[in-house]
Amino acid sequence: MKTIISISEMQNFSERARLRKKTVGLVPTMGYLHEGHVSLIKTAKKSCDLVVTSIFVNPAQFAPNEDFVRYPRDIARDKKLCKSAGTTVLFTPEAESMYPKGYSTYITVEGISSVLEGKFRPTHFRGVTTVVAKLFLIVNPDKAFFGRKDAQQCVVIKKLARDLNFGTEIVVAPIVRERDGLAMSSRNIYLSPQEREQATILRASLLHAETMVKKGTTKTAEVVKEIARLIETKPAASVDYIAVVHAESLTELEKFEPGVPALIALAVRIGKTRLIDNTTIILH
Amino acid sequence: MKTIISISEMQNFSERARLRKKTVGLVPTMGYLHEGHVSLIKTAKKSCDLVVTSIFVNPAQFAPNEDFVRYPRDIARDKKLCKSAGTTVLFTPEAESMYPKGYSTYITVEGISSVLEGKFRPTHFRGVTTVVAKLFLIVNPDKAFFGRKDAQQCVVIKKLARDLNFGTEIVVAPIVRERDGLAMSSRNIYLSPQEREQATILRASLLHAETMVKKGTTKTAEVVKEIARLIETKPAASVDYIAVVHAESLTELEKFEPGVPALIALAVRIGKTRLIDNTTIILH
Repeated sequence: MKTIISISEMQNFSERARLRKKTVGLVPTMGYLHEGHVSLIKTAKKSCDLVVTSIFVNPAQFAPNEDFVRYPRDIARDKKLCKSAGTTVLFTPEAESMYPKGYSTYITVEGISSVLEGKFRPTHFRGVTTVVAKLFLIVNPDKAFFGRKDAQQCVVIKKLARDLNFGTEIVVAPIVRERDGLAMSSRNIYLSPQEREQATILRASLLHAETMVKKGTTKTAEVVKEIARLIETKPAASVDYIAVVHAESLTELEKFEPGVPALIALAVRIGKTRLIDNTTIILH
Repeated sequence: MKTIISISEMQNFSERARLRKKTVGLVPTMGYLHEGHVSLIKTAKKSCDLVVTSIFVNPAQFAPNEDFVRYPRDIARDKKLCKSAGTTVLFTPEAESMYPKGYSTYITVEGISSVLEGKFRPTHFRGVTTVVAKLFLIVNPDKAFFGRKDAQQCVVIKKLARDLNFGTEIVVAPIVRERDGLAMSSRNIYLSPQEREQATILRASLLHAETMVKKGTTKTAEVVKEIARLIETKPAASVDYIAVVHAESLTELEKFEPGVPALIALAVRIGKTRLIDNTTIILH
């Protein structure tokens, strides 16, 4: 595995790969890798000749009151995980080269960036789409791999790629979970043992919602109310939002209906740690 | 000369050119070509193996009250000019494929897009940078060629390319003028014969300004005042702005100083037609 820090060196590597007709897969991450990331790298390795894993804690997607500074970092461990998962190039650009002095260009995917996470983190997706576009222009990947835990991010990035005519195919991989159902996240490390236990309610409440819908509940409001009730049984939990939206347009749904893919998405603070999870239901 | 309408066909053409190691130059235009455009195509031809000229009247860079609908079009004449100037591919995408239903992604170069033209046309550069980024992603040019008449546009696009890590070199070519000094513009066709004559005051006032500075005037306010006085002698003329700014940062300058490149930029309405012109002064 090769490590590249310089943007121009990364661009040269990608250009040479392209001239040799090698396909390139990109797995963009913020590091502190977990099994979810490893699964993305392995998935990329299956369908691409070369896999670039990027590690960049992107300041542009954090608001001033968020956890940019304390976001967990462990590059030595990340390198081992990247290598064993099959990464060809580990790309670790520096913040000063990604956002040099005077940097001022931002990309906004209007509409779908303003709902759900966007309501609570108004500048978040602007930071995400900007850095992803930059990584696409630096790495020029044939495919890029994202985890479904960030369901809205996947929708926003697919739209970014389509609207701006990126030649990159966006591949969305399933959520990888801990044994007790908690979605893998670099932020899980923030949780105290008590909080860690209470955090299982996110997945548990989504599973309960799935059962309700399968058994015939059609009103989304009823399902949302029941999820909220379950989450509120945990003393450390505080709901940011629970929403049922069309899985592609992200517009709110009033009913679960056959053929309409419904995304149930939620964000919950467990103590000071903000966690997200989701599930998609398609009735036939 | 080949004409391509489809975005994917254009992308395939560019990809094949790249694999054959042919360099590609892009001359993005809104059509109704004049000698300024022809000069850009010829310049591109000198340094690139293949020249793509795009013609696309970009709705995103016009405000609702502007001249999108009546913007002059003459594709038959444009084709002849493109071919004789040395265009390899004429790319004429349709608005519905550039901005399909539900399109919502926009790129903003903050700061430098808000001054000068940006004050009078607040959404203009957002439209320009978005369409230019899309064209870069479709054509993947080694170099792209722009005319200095749109001085601010050149600065904004250079920043766009640098900030987002486009591999495209931005080449800025000199203003091409009519015999009497009026800068070539597709919008000159709007002028009545009387207005056409009065429009020469834009260039004449800029030449006068250059002389003032050469003769020792250092205060930019004095020069701006004199330009305004000259323009106001023309009954059809109405000034939008006259400004002296740093040619790269576009920040306002109080003085002409040795080594500081000063851009004198102006926008003037002649009757209902809005014209722009500029000159850059560097004292040694």
